[in-house]
Amino acid sequence: MKFNHVALIGLGLIASSIALALKIKDSKIKITGYSRSQKTREEANKIGFCEVCNCYENCIKGADLVILCIPVGAMGDIMKTISPFLSKSTVVTDVGSVKESVIIEIEKNIPSDVFFVPAHPIAGTENSGPAAGFASLFKNRWCILTPTKEVPIAVIKKVRLFWESLGSKVVEMDAKHHDLVLSVTSHAPHLIAFTMVGVADDFSKITKSEVINYSAAGFRDFTRLAASDPVMWRDVFLNNKDAALEILGRFTEELFILQKAIRKKDGEYLLKYFERTREIRRSIIDAGQDTAEPNFGRK
Amino acid sequence: MKFNHVALIGLGLIASSIALALKIKDSKIKITGYSRSQKTREEANKIGFCEVCNCYENCIKGADLVILCIPVGAMGDIMKTISPFLSKSTVVTDVGSVKESVIIEIEKNIPSDVFFVPAHPIAGTENSGPAAGFASLFKNRWCILTPTKEVPIAVIKKVRLFWESLGSKVVEMDAKHHDLVLSVTSHAPHLIAFTMVGVADDFSKITKSEVINYSAAGFRDFTRLAASDPVMWRDVFLNNKDAALEILGRFTEELFILQKAIRKKDGEYLLKYFERTREIRRSIIDAGQDTAEPNFGRK
Repeated sequence: MKFNHVALIGLGLIASSIALALKIKDSKIKITGYSRSQKTREEANKIGFCEVCNCYENCIKGADLVILCIPVGAMGDIMKTISPFLSKSTVVTDVGSVKESVIIEIEKNIPSDVFFVPAHPIAGTENSGPAAGFASLFKNRWCILTPTKEVPIAVIKKVRLFWESLGSKVVEMDAKHHDLVLSVTSHAPHLIAFTMVGVADDFSKITKSEVINYSAAGFRDFTRLAASDPVMWRDVFLNNKDAALEILGRFTEELFILQKAIRKKDGEYLLKYFERTREIRRSIIDAGQDTAEPNFGRK
Repeated sequence: MKFNHVALIGLGLIASSIALALKIKDSKIKITGYSRSQKTREEANKIGFCEVCNCYENCIKGADLVILCIPVGAMGDIMKTISPFLSKSTVVTDVGSVKESVIIEIEKNIPSDVFFVPAHPIAGTENSGPAAGFASLFKNRWCILTPTKEVPIAVIKKVRLFWESLGSKVVEMDAKHHDLVLSVTSHAPHLIAFTMVGVADDFSKITKSEVINYSAAGFRDFTRLAASDPVMWRDVFLNNKDAALEILGRFTEELFILQKAIRKKDGEYLLKYFERTREIRRSIIDAGQDTAEPNFGRK
């Protein structure tokens, strides 16, 4: 039930973390990798977390698991490019933050004798590139699979075991529902953070050093999300348009109501609203999805 | 140039952190404290960071520095209450997140022979109450003084040295400007975080456990700010209405432009926007106002 040769397409944070975690579990596993960017290949080669290849074909040849660790907007094209090099019964999976559009793009281009199991590990940091990876990235984090009906249960199980071996807790979900859930827990918060940081950057009545010096009062938290990979996030919003706009619509509605409460000095409404949001943080900490340390345990 | 007896009005996170930091610097300094809440007094007494008094009068009697560590909405009333107990030339300061309205409220009620130096230490965590304090809270953080013209420079200097002795870097600023700067770096981010957490809590198409389990994808960062003290934040928005609404207005404008870019699939606009926000985080880290560790160094 194990894969013997894992091929990583893309060599960024997620790919390097997968390789580092895999090697701890199984020092003999074959891991190959390829990135379109020569700079990234050279960087990955220097770190040495996998055998860096000079083309897609060499990377994929003989692999029984191919993992697409690339921005969601590149999935279709790259699937088309690598398609001729895939052997029968190879398993292809991905790590994209959007699932419905990725499934459509991949299924358009994948050979019919190859299996595709869409996946999304809910893990990451604000850093990107091969040097950003670390073996414990997936530990105690969820990985969501959104398998289609055509794929045999045994294949799905094999991908599930793969993610579990990296430390993940695995759950299956409908792709459309995944995209809605992630709009709430990831896509909308990121767009909001990018927006707030942009607003601070543009606001000419205060200086840049004022923004920076007094950021510890809350703003600095937003700058972490807004430091995430720009290409990855552009692709997320272009490929999960409807769900993202639905949540952003609800968010702006609610924000207008709170703005009106401020304008009308409705302290009771504000207090009630602020009181109910504490509980969610407690639940997240209890579920092991965040630290209980104040300020995230910052040093 | 040192204070000999510091009286803390309010015994929460900020007051307990001040006391703990003071004691490290000067084990003989007299620190008294009082809170309206009996439960808080008992809790503070158990921790033992100061001499907990049973009334305002006993707390303030003989103090040469009185620090108001209470929500900004309570400043006026409490100033009025403690006014009869203040000796000539006592220095009063505060730690409120809003300065213009606090100055108005305090000056209405303070005796004319007592000095008031408004202050705002830019430090805190999402936790509140006497047990949340720790001695290093102010270390390397800014403390903004917004002194009025009536106060002698020697008194301002004494308050400056006080905050510096706790580890703060001290800066002076106009009160109105302070309120605008903090709207950007603190008040708007908190309201936005409260709103996003409220939206997630309300959204019936996904379950609460889905929000919690997949929060590591970004949302959990917002829950920290939204777990802050509700009364403190209600008072901030009621007392810094104009500046908060100005920044929230700019934020919603910008968010609408980004929503439109998503709707029109304008990838170029999104990419450009997302690319420029990375730099601010780098500057904040370089200025020592956040950790360079990925994910804030969460364990």
